[in-house]
Amino acid sequence: MSDARQYFKLSPDFTMKRGGVLQGAQLAYETWGTLSAQRDNAVLILTGLSPSAHAASSAEDQTPGWWEEMLGPGKPIDTRRWHVICVNTLGSCKGSTGPASVNPETGATYRIDFPKLSLEDAAIAAHELVRGLGIERLACLIGNSMGGMTALAYLSLHPGSVRAHVSISTAPQAQPFAIAIRSLQREAIRLDPHWNLGNYDDENYPETGMSIARKLGVITYRSAMEWVGRFARIRLDSDEREDEPFAVEFQVESYLAAHARRFVRSFDPNCYLYLSRASDWFDISEHGQGNARSALANIRLERALVIGVSTDILFPLSQQEEIAEGLRAGGADVEFVALDSPQGHDAFLVDIDGFGGKIAPFMASL
Amino acid sequence: MSDARQYFKLSPDFTMKRGGVLQGAQLAYETWGTLSAQRDNAVLILTGLSPSAHAASSAEDQTPGWWEEMLGPGKPIDTRRWHVICVNTLGSCKGSTGPASVNPETGATYRIDFPKLSLEDAAIAAHELVRGLGIERLACLIGNSMGGMTALAYLSLHPGSVRAHVSISTAPQAQPFAIAIRSLQREAIRLDPHWNLGNYDDENYPETGMSIARKLGVITYRSAMEWVGRFARIRLDSDEREDEPFAVEFQVESYLAAHARRFVRSFDPNCYLYLSRASDWFDISEHGQGNARSALANIRLERALVIGVSTDILFPLSQQEEIAEGLRAGGADVEFVALDSPQGHDAFLVDIDGFGGKIAPFMASL
Repeated sequence: MSDARQYFKLSPDFTMKRGGVLQGAQLAYETWGTLSAQRDNAVLILTGLSPSAHAASSAEDQTPGWWEEMLGPGKPIDTRRWHVICVNTLGSCKGSTGPASVNPETGATYRIDFPKLSLEDAAIAAHELVRGLGIERLACLIGNSMGGMTALAYLSLHPGSVRAHVSISTAPQAQPFAIAIRSLQREAIRLDPHWNLGNYDDENYPETGMSIARKLGVITYRSAMEWVGRFARIRLDSDEREDEPFAVEFQVESYLAAHARRFVRSFDPNCYLYLSRASDWFDISEHGQGNARSALANIRLERALVIGVSTDILFPLSQQEEIAEGLRAGGADVEFVALDSPQGHDAFLVDIDGFGGKIAPFMASL
Repeated sequence: MSDARQYFKLSPDFTMKRGGVLQGAQLAYETWGTLSAQRDNAVLILTGLSPSAHAASSAEDQTPGWWEEMLGPGKPIDTRRWHVICVNTLGSCKGSTGPASVNPETGATYRIDFPKLSLEDAAIAAHELVRGLGIERLACLIGNSMGGMTALAYLSLHPGSVRAHVSISTAPQAQPFAIAIRSLQREAIRLDPHWNLGNYDDENYPETGMSIARKLGVITYRSAMEWVGRFARIRLDSDEREDEPFAVEFQVESYLAAHARRFVRSFDPNCYLYLSRASDWFDISEHGQGNARSALANIRLERALVIGVSTDILFPLSQQEEIAEGLRAGGADVEFVALDSPQGHDAFLVDIDGFGGKIAPFMASL
């Protein structure tokens, strides 16, 4: 399979917020569309915890991306007009430097010797990339889920670097319910004997822990309402069932199992732990003398579109409203949209009509 | 500690719905108040998955019960008037026969050789107890959570056996979100190597699996809203933290850990698996030719009080409304109450003002 990823070298001695320095670190990214001569049409997308930089297909990589329907010629984020950049988060395992990378100073994989990661580190790295591409100011910064928190860090740390912002299903700070869920996901991985303090390999891999973590993720990313319509109480045929005590029996159980199977070996467990904890740690109030509202009001933007979903239990609508009000207090022209998509937190990935219907006119109006 | 439990022998050859027969099985129960000469003041309480029959203190056992504030002289369920019976569910491990009991036919603990358990079995056993106590007809049947499903089975299987019903935070059938949560809890136990197909002992005990299952339970029993007010982003003092990678850091994490510690060794893992699966299996529509509404409308009651909580994500308000409407279609005089308690599914255990405020006048009016 061809690969559309490009790589950007971060500055030497890249200093991490909570201590530690990265040498020779890099970010993987992909781009679509053409940067204008004025370099004023750049759009940066910051992703959720697990996606790669491959947001959409391109000539170099024709496989569908994770936001395929949102991004491309004539799509809501129209690449005939915009030069779109999507970056794999610092700390991830899809080409950017993270716990699964080799530490050039030791020649060994970092594993849990990787410095503590914060979303501020991810934001600073993404900003270095944007500047490295010769872009002074983004036309628009888009952040989904964890990427929305990273975007708030980016905006707080780099005043004047962004004209417009699209904030999607995210949080100004992690709330205890989301912390509890993520903490339990991390615990499932850590308690798997194969995690072994981060020293696993393909033979001895924390498969069980990753599977439980992923299933819990999928449960909280979707909504009870959607599943009533989708799975009801439909059972698997008897030939689809495993012959073991308490084996899965309902379709919803095999749906979770299929999701887990796809994820378990495709995402590095240590990277998962680092990014999950970074999400818990994120708190915009650190950029506003302990006050979230002040921190948001310190952000300077011309325009913002803030979208949330009423069925999202992980990043509730009240947190999207808080972001919208805070940015408005900072002087931005803010449009707040509450969607009734049944798909919960994941709606931005699947309810393209709902999200695209708001993002398209916003982008066109910039 | 003294013990208020009494024991009732179920009929020999107690036949289980999904096959299998129990010999010499028993139910543990406790009672409060005095049965009237007419035997017309009996109230039966069916519990959630984990509680014992010790709903409230008594002269024989002065330790507080799990519904201490709801039950007693002058309390919402006033034991000066009512003869209250609370039963430990068949299949549980608090004195009633279940997977942790010895099979008299083999002399060995049942473990996963216990017959498949359904809530109908639990309902039939509870009905045998009531009849065994010489009670023809209950003045009121109260069911919480899983006990509410068991109560619907009791009402469906024993027409004319109950005058009034209090249904609390339960479901006419398990929905896929609840199935997904419970399936994941069971998986965490089953994948713990110490579960060992049910063959654990005190030395080799599925501590990890039970802990994850319990934490996931607590997360879904409460509500995000409550935790924002209760824990916010408060951190543990550094001397309360364990010195290990990714150790807990936030108060909400240690709250979950404390809950898990209390539960892990106090509830038998195999019993947990059986009762959890029985909850997934329950479907009132099996008592109405495949139609839940018909099944509910087949139930004959004089009065019913149906209470749900808007923040309950496991047993949503829509399911309480479905129960209320179905019972009303069956001719009962039904009062439906939607409470805004912030505590989610567990509100009936803690929001005594809210629940007691509805249960007290209902009971007084009977």
